[in-house]
Order: sequence, then structure tokens, then C-alpha cells
Amino acid sequence: MGKRITGDGTQSLLTLAQEAGISLTAVCGGTGVCGACKVRCMNGQLSESHNSESELFSETQIGQGWRLACMAYPLSDVRVEIPPESMTTTQRLQIEGVLREVPFKPAMQLRKFTLTEPNPDDLRADWERFTAAMGNNFSQRQDLQLPVLTQLSDRMRAGNWPGVAVFDEDQAVVGFLEADQTPCGVAVDIGTTKMAAFLVDLSTGETLGKMGAMNPQISYGEDVISRIAYANQGPTFRETLQASLAQGINDLVDNLCLSVGVEQTQIVDFVLVGNTAMHHLFAGLPVRQLGQAPYVAAVSQALRVPAHELSLVGAPGARIYLPPNIAGYVGGDHIAMLLASNVRQGDGVIVALDIGTNTEISLSKGGKLISCSCASGPAFEGAHIHAGMRAVPGAIERARFYEGDWHISTIDDEPPIGLCGSGILDVVAELLVSGQIDTTGRFTTQAIRRVHQGRSDAVVLVPGTNSGTGKDILVTQADIREIQLAKAAIRAGVAALLRATGTKENAIDQFIIAGAFGTYLNLESALKIGMFPELPRERYQQVGNAAGVGAQHLLVSVDSRRQAEAILADVDYLELTTDPGFMASYVDVMGFDPIRKE
Amino acid sequence: MGKRITGDGTQSLLTLAQEAGISLTAVCGGTGVCGACKVRCMNGQLSESHNSESELFSETQIGQGWRLACMAYPLSDVRVEIPPESMTTTQRLQIEGVLREVPFKPAMQLRKFTLTEPNPDDLRADWERFTAAMGNNFSQRQDLQLPVLTQLSDRMRAGNWPGVAVFDEDQAVVGFLEADQTPCGVAVDIGTTKMAAFLVDLSTGETLGKMGAMNPQISYGEDVISRIAYANQGPTFRETLQASLAQGINDLVDNLCLSVGVEQTQIVDFVLVGNTAMHHLFAGLPVRQLGQAPYVAAVSQALRVPAHELSLVGAPGARIYLPPNIAGYVGGDHIAMLLASNVRQGDGVIVALDIGTNTEISLSKGGKLISCSCASGPAFEGAHIHAGMRAVPGAIERARFYEGDWHISTIDDEPPIGLCGSGILDVVAELLVSGQIDTTGRFTTQAIRRVHQGRSDAVVLVPGTNSGTGKDILVTQADIREIQLAKAAIRAGVAALLRATGTKENAIDQFIIAGAFGTYLNLESALKIGMFPELPRERYQQVGNAAGVGAQHLLVSVDSRRQAEAILADVDYLELTTDPGFMASYVDVMGFDPIRKE
Repeated sequence: MGKRITGDGTQSLLTLAQEAGISLTAVCGGTGVCGACKVRCMNGQLSESHNSESELFSETQIGQGWRLACMAYPLSDVRVEIPPESMTTTQRLQIEGVLREVPFKPAMQLRKFTLTEPNPDDLRADWERFTAAMGNNFSQRQDLQLPVLTQLSDRMRAGNWPGVAVFDEDQAVVGFLEADQTPCGVAVDIGTTKMAAFLVDLSTGETLGKMGAMNPQISYGEDVISRIAYANQGPTFRETLQASLAQGINDLVDNLCLSVGVEQTQIVDFVLVGNTAMHHLFAGLPVRQLGQAPYVAAVSQALRVPAHELSLVGAPGARIYLPPNIAGYVGGDHIAMLLASNVRQGDGVIVALDIGTNTEISLSKGGKLISCSCASGPAFEGAHIHAGMRAVPGAIERARFYEGDWHISTIDDEPPIGLCGSGILDVVAELLVSGQIDTTGRFTTQAIRRVHQGRSDAVVLVPGTNSGTGKDILVTQADIREIQLAKAAIRAGVAALLRATGTKENAIDQFIIAGAFGTYLNLESALKIGMFPELPRERYQQVGNAAGVGAQHLLVSVDSRRQAEAILADVDYLELTTDPGFMASYVDVMGFDPIRKE
Repeated sequence: MGKRITGDGTQSLLTLAQEAGISLTAVCGGTGVCGACKVRCMNGQLSESHNSESELFSETQIGQGWRLACMAYPLSDVRVEIPPESMTTTQRLQIEGVLREVPFKPAMQLRKFTLTEPNPDDLRADWERFTAAMGNNFSQRQDLQLPVLTQLSDRMRAGNWPGVAVFDEDQAVVGFLEADQTPCGVAVDIGTTKMAAFLVDLSTGETLGKMGAMNPQISYGEDVISRIAYANQGPTFRETLQASLAQGINDLVDNLCLSVGVEQTQIVDFVLVGNTAMHHLFAGLPVRQLGQAPYVAAVSQALRVPAHELSLVGAPGARIYLPPNIAGYVGGDHIAMLLASNVRQGDGVIVALDIGTNTEISLSKGGKLISCSCASGPAFEGAHIHAGMRAVPGAIERARFYEGDWHISTIDDEPPIGLCGSGILDVVAELLVSGQIDTTGRFTTQAIRRVHQGRSDAVVLVPGTNSGTGKDILVTQADIREIQLAKAAIRAGVAALLRATGTKENAIDQFIIAGAFGTYLNLESALKIGMFPELPRERYQQVGNAAGVGAQHLLVSVDSRRQAEAILADVDYLELTTDPGFMASYVDVMGFDPIRKE
């Protein structure tokens, strides 16, 4: 994160961090109970471990420097790493630092040129004048893009005769720059709900700015299925969805450009990643087949499209690169995640997953890659949960049960109004650990503050007197069932890949958890409810928005594009709905395993 | 023309033709005086030549079978050729027969394919399923066109799994056909005023239908200059002109498709030819530089553009081919005309010209080609002429002066309301021959029915009692000056090319006159006023809408496209505005040469 804080040794790391504006989670208020403020000391001396820490961490972890920030006091200059799950709001740059760097090798190349004005002795047309000035290296292409030609003539007429031309991989011109302008690119991770855009300087590879926004298609349907239904009404409905998404991206680009002082005409290259449905809806492709068995994509291969054809703003001939789709429910965002996490070049057995309504999982072993998608449902996005909500201020994102009651922390420390994904995960894990639900998921007699919510049993997590809405915040029996379904799908998906490759769970060398929920989830809670296989802790990596990082890699490196295409050529796709072992395994892991003590 | 007529030997060829609905011109009413109904007997026996014919035709011409239809009576089965200038409305098919045929070699190729439906054991995406079915010959192209992909998926979903794919020269898919559909193409000659479209079956090369319409841009400016001024107001004005032209072409295509029972999705290829301004305005390119010295084009090279990018309807990936522009005022329509007239492959010295507001002239000699454009003005289109009008019903298209008065014929034999180009040309020639104007172009005392029109002298061609409007139809001194300017520009343009290539006038082996006005003009009148060099009559060819024929050649033959591109690579362009000899020569030929008797 790069921050330096000065203390006098009387303040805990938690206090120092909080004073410096670093949002460390502290559900218990810094009393060493909740275990949320885990940090890792990289060098320097800290005070002795507290009892509560010995209970929380394994010997190995303590050896690695893991501490609770609330219990650790600096005795010297110390360097401390904060894992994403210990933050209330994530420091993305730090998270992204976890991910692999790529050699800088952008698709776009610059060439300077100088032109003479036409005169009676030299009546060549603008384009022929330009191509002659570019010399022998210029590959004559008949299908030059008209908007590029238009800009050339306009700039010439405006007196901008010398300039810099930007060429793509095929030696086609995509735009023109002033001498003092740098070429830029935009990488966008298009989620079903949210989009994240990154503005990158293509002369250095540096990310100049980043910005997030809601996916504007959300007003036509909250989830993939409802948007497919909308699009299925006809081509004009598809066009509406395409236009709304393009407009949303243009707005992001607009704001990004303004914020860092870049002209839109400097943007010569786009990389867009998303799930297959977002890919198709952005490209204006039919999606009916994504909504019905056997759920195939319209196209798998990587696409290169002129940006103006999909209504994105930028240089007149700006290009869009869309990485391949593996299957109808494993899209280019998953490939981007695999690239950013270096899954393919990795040694040993790697499992990498991105949790969402559909959870895409890949397993890499001996250079082979196999992928699947499981319907984990929207519970972790706060949907289908009685008090569920998105991860916005006021959402309970951490919960611990101790000393006979619930202790929670909310996003931005606002009064609690509901539960986001990481909150409901914590609650279920704590209900289980404290014996308030049994291994079948049913409330036991030990459940505190039990009430009835309709036909369902429930417990009051936060009484109305303490909530932001004045109403009780409940967790219902149905909520617990939703979480069981979700975690069973994920666990069974991993199991199916292990089975298909003849791999044992404990042979997994790396277990990579990507995506927003994957970043914020409390790993221990996930392990307590059996969502992931139980492995030594150092094998887990929560890598944040790896798809966004992968999109940036694709933007700055043609090698990454070739790797993405190689992944498509090599990957095996395992269809779980027809996998004979999947359903059995799914039912098998629906309950809660006996809790393993560390 | 292919028509067969039966007679009993008592009717003249003129009468027989008129009864059969063939619109032979007969200004004098079939009395052997006006010489308008010239025909050529190809075989069979006709009655003896009349005196009037011996006066009108040279020995050579009589030997070649030239006759006046009104004076010739069939004595056996005869085969008669009617030159276009003898028709009131042209039989285009016959005219086009004059022009060179091209070997059939279209850019688009068909390949049949059969697909299996996706199933749990075969989850390939639609596009990958298709490319696999196409086999090894398929060249993997990342930049497949999205509309093509969309149509593939839609057709698959509609149950049309087997089909025929249409590929372009680069092996890119442009569309899909049902098994019983043929691929079609559309060639359009975009004139500043009129457009002509040809629907061609690309499996046979046969022209299925043709249709004309006004260029809808005319509502934004009648001529090139006013349209350039409109476009110069900004990009949205350019877009308006582009959209209006695209809409006009789409309407033509729509009607053509309806008239011959072809689906729009069968249209996989377009060829559009026009002058450089029409080219740029259709392609949405800047035109400011066309309106100001030194009048350069934005692009010369041939362009290939996806049809949807310029809003033309057709197959989803239909292509547009735009042949090269030679210069700012010598466009692709001139190249098309040269192709259709076989100018480049021709032996000897060939001059080919297309008369319009700008007259493009090319001279071919010893395999070299040189072109120029001269500002001949709009007089021959009926503009800047006191009683001028376009060639529509009621326009005087032929005029002779004999027996002390004017004898006229009008288009569709409607009452006369004004003069079109060929009419005013005839009038000026007859005024000269009958001594009513002198060799400087001024009215003489012999001019009949002289009146004053404003400050200008004039003669009454048709008194109001005989005209369709009830008003006198006048020919003014200013009208004669306009024609002098026009003919001088053309004659001086030809002279400049001859001078530049060191060629004598009488060395011209072929003199090709193309275009609508060139078809209808009375060659003898043009020669009388000195518009063209005086050559033996058989060296002249009036070839009709050669640009439209050339556009069809480009549509059905990639060889023609390569020839068009070779013309661009080889041609010399002579800029007349800076040519030292041009102005002198222009002034020199402004008057009327003494009339040469044959």
C-alpha cells in the first residue's frame, strides 16, 4: 500500500492504521476477540503474541508473521502487509500487486510522419500523400477504415500536417496523435452488476486512472437470465441492451479522460472482458442459446472489432479486443482471471475460481486446463437472502458470535441495514460454530433470539433498536438453505474437476479465489462451512479483481492475447449438468461437515 | 434491340418502327428533311437511296448501309441497327451491347455446409461449429463481422442448420443463403443528378433488373459545388448527405428486389461509381478540399467497406467496392467508363469523354493513359439556359431549321415546354448553319423572329401559340454564349491531351462519347459547332451509360477491379487550370470554325 506511519510504541498497529485512514476491520472494537484485523509482519519487531492470537493462528502462520493488528505494538520500524480480507474497503492497487506482471508489448505502434501540402505540381490525394510519407513499411490495405481517413483529411485541412500515426497489429492505421500526446487504451471488466474501467498509457503501460460504475443494463434485468429474456424479444431489444452498455462504458471513458487530462481521440485500443452473456450483449449477438440447454455461445474465438461499430468513443479507428469465451457460462473474464493469476504457467495443481451467481472454476495440472461453471446462485451478492443487500454502506460485512451475542461491522461503519455476501457467510459459519444450527443446517435450541418469519424460522441478528432501519435484521432458515446450496455447488464443482483429472484434494498446491466477493469473504468462515477444501492456509490466495487485472494485461501485451487464445485452444470444458458424479457430490456436500480444528 | 416487325413493303422503316413502339426520332414528320431517323442496314435489301439521303451521308456511310428510316422501304427481310442518337428514348440494352463483355469472375464465392445441432457431447459455439464444418479451406479470421455472426446464430436457432455460405475475396463470410437462393449484387452509377442501379445475379452474371431515380442529395444542392458548401458546414451535414444518398440507394435496391423477387439478404456485393464528390459524399468523407484549389481527393485508391457501415441494406456482411478516383474531378465513374469502353486494351489512339458540368476526358496512346477534367458547365444539363430544362417529357431534344422555320421534336411527343441539352445543341448548330448567328456567335440580320429578352437579344424558337406553356420558347444570345463556353472547354480539353502526348487530331482512331447527354446528342450538330475534332464518322462511338456498364463489370469481375486499380497506378493526370496551353487554346476555339463540308 506504500503508506508510512509514525508511532511511539504505545499504540497498537490497529490504532495507528485507523489514525492513518486505513480501514482495517475491527468487529470487536480491538479487543482481540473477533480475529478480523489480521496482518502479517514482514520485518521489524512487534510485541509478544497475545493469547487470543495463539488460538487464532497455526504455528506455521505465527512463524510467517501473522498477527492481530489490535494486539500488536511496534518495538522497532516494522513493515506490515494487510491482506484484503482484513480491510473494510479494499486497496485495489495492493491486491493487484499480488498478480503477475506482464512484459509490455502493446498491439498499437506509433510512427511519426511529415507531410507537404498539395500544390499544382503535387495533386496526390490525402491518403496517398500519407501512405507515401509512411514509406516502404506501409502495407497497402484497401479496407482502410473510413473514419480514419476522415480524421486524416480533417486534421490536414486544420493545418496539422505533421503528426504521429497509430498502427494496429495488422499495420492498419487506427488514429493520429499530436506530437505531445501519448496513445492510451481502456480495459473494462463488465460484470453483470458492476463495471470497472482502467485507463492505461500505452507508451509506458502505466495505469493512469480507474473508475467503477453500475452496468446500466441493470435497468433491463438484474441478472443474466432476465437480460437474456429481455434480449430474446427481438433484435431491437438486443440493440437497446448493446446501446445502454456502450453508453455506460463511454461515460466511464469520458470521466476517466477528464480526470487524468487525456483526449478521447488518444484512446486507440479497448479490451473488454465479461462473462459470455455480457460479451454477447455488448457485441449485439443473439443470447437465446445461452438461456436454454445446452447453453452454447454464439462464438468462442477472440474478436477484434472496430470500436465505432459498437459505438465506443475513441480514436476514429480504435479497436476492441474481446478475449475468447470458453463456454456459454465460462467467459473471457475467466480467461482474463487465469492470465492475471498466472494459472497456466503455474507449477503443480492450481484451482482458480471466481464466485458469482455462476461460479467459474478452472483446474490446471501438468499443463492441462479444465474448466466448469456451477450455478451457485445470487446469495453471495445479497439476493435471495431475507435481509440481503449489495456491498454498499450499511451492509454487514463481518459478523462474529462470542460472549453470547453477535458482533458486527458494516461497510463505512454506517448503522446496519442488511447483510452483504461476506456478512451472511460469516453469520452461517458462526451459527454453525456456536451450535445454533446443526450439521444439516437447521436451527437448534441454542439459537438465540429465535422468531418466526412467515413460515420460516429465523434469528434476530440485529434488533431494530440497533439497526439503521429501526427494524430487526433477521437471518432465516431459508437464508441458511440458500448458503448451503451455494457452497455445495462450489464445493461439488471443485470436486468434479478433481475427479475428472484424477486429483486428490490435498494435492492442490494453490487455491486462487478471485472476484469482489472472493476478496472480501472471510476465508475461515468459508472453510468452516465447507465451501472450499480444507488445505494449509498458505495455499489460498484471495487475488481481488483478477479479471480487471487480466483485462489490463490483454491491453498492454499481445503476448497475453496469444496466451488467451492458446487457453481457448487447449482448455477442456466440463459440463456439470450432465456430469454423472456432480449431482451425487452436490447432495453429499450440502450439509456441514464436522468442523475441523486447526 | 431484338424486336421483329412484319411489313408488306409498302411501309417505310420509320412507320414500321413507330407502329412497333420503337421511338425513332422524326423531327420533320418523315419527309426526309431533318435527317434525324438515321439507321444502318446490316443485311437484306432496302429501296433505292433518296436524294435527301445522298446529301446527308458520305459515300463511305452509304457503303456501310446508313439510311434514313423514313426514306427506306424493305424489299426483303432486313436487319436494321438503330444508333442511340436516332432514338427519342434510348434502348439501353442495345447501347450496352456496344460495350465490351467481361469474363465472369465475381468476388464472391459460395460454399455449402451442413451443421449438427449442439448437444451435451458437442458444446462448440455456433461460429466454431460453422468453421469446423467449412473444413480446412476456412481461413481463421479474428475480425469476422458481427452482423454475419448474428445472422448465423439466428438462422441456426430458426432451424436452418444446413445452408450456403458466401465468402468474399479474403475468405471472409459475408452472408448465408437458402439452398434455392442465388447470390446477387447491385451496381450503382451515382450521378450528381440521377442514379442508375443494376441488380445482377452473381451466379450467372445476368442483369436481372435496372432502375433509375433522382439522387436525393439534390434537395441539399443541385450541383456539386452547392453540395460541397452544404457539407462544409460540419460533420453532421456530411452525415445528412451520406444518409440521404444511402436511403436513396436502399429504396432503389428495395424496388429492384421486389420487382424481380429477390430477398435483400441475397445481396452480398455492391459496386458504386460516381464522380469524386459523389464518392466522398457517399463515403462520408470531407469534401472541403474538392471545392478549393488545388482540388485534391481525400483518397484515390479503391475502397472496400462493409455495406452496413455506410447503411446499405443487404446480406449482413455485404461488401461495397468503390473503384479508385483519378483526381478531385476525375472519379471512379470515369474509370468505369474506360473499363466498359475497353479504352486501355484498345489499339491506337483513343479519346473517351463523359460530358457533364465537368467533362472528364482520357486519351490512351501506346498503352499510356492521360486524363483531365474541364469545367464545361451545366448548359447541356439544361441549366444556365433561358428555356433550359432537364431531359424530361416536353423537352425539345431535336431541332432542325429548314424551309424558313424551326422543326422540333420533344421527349414523349409532349407539347414543347423548354430545351434539354441535345435540343439547345441542335439549335445552336442550326442557327450557325443557316447563317442566323455568325462565327463569333452573335445573331445576324438573318435571324428570324428576333426579340429582346431583358438586355439580351433572342429568337423565338416556338411561339407561345404552339408551346405547352402558352409562352414563347426563346433562345437568347446568352444561351449561345453558354454553349460556346461549354464546347470550347471540351474541345480545348481534348486539345490539351493531344498536345501533352504529341498527337495530331486526325491520329485519333476512336472517339468515344459516353454518358446520357453524349448518347442523345446529335453528333453532326456537335461537329458543326466544333465541340469535337472533325474525324471520319466511323471513328465516333456514342456508348450510352458506359459508367453504369463499367460498374456492372466491376461487380461481376475481379479482373475488372484489378484493371481499375491498374489504371490508377498508370494514369497521368493533367491539371488544366495550370496547363500553360489550355487557356490559349480555350479562347482559340470559343468561336465557330468555318463549317467543313463532308
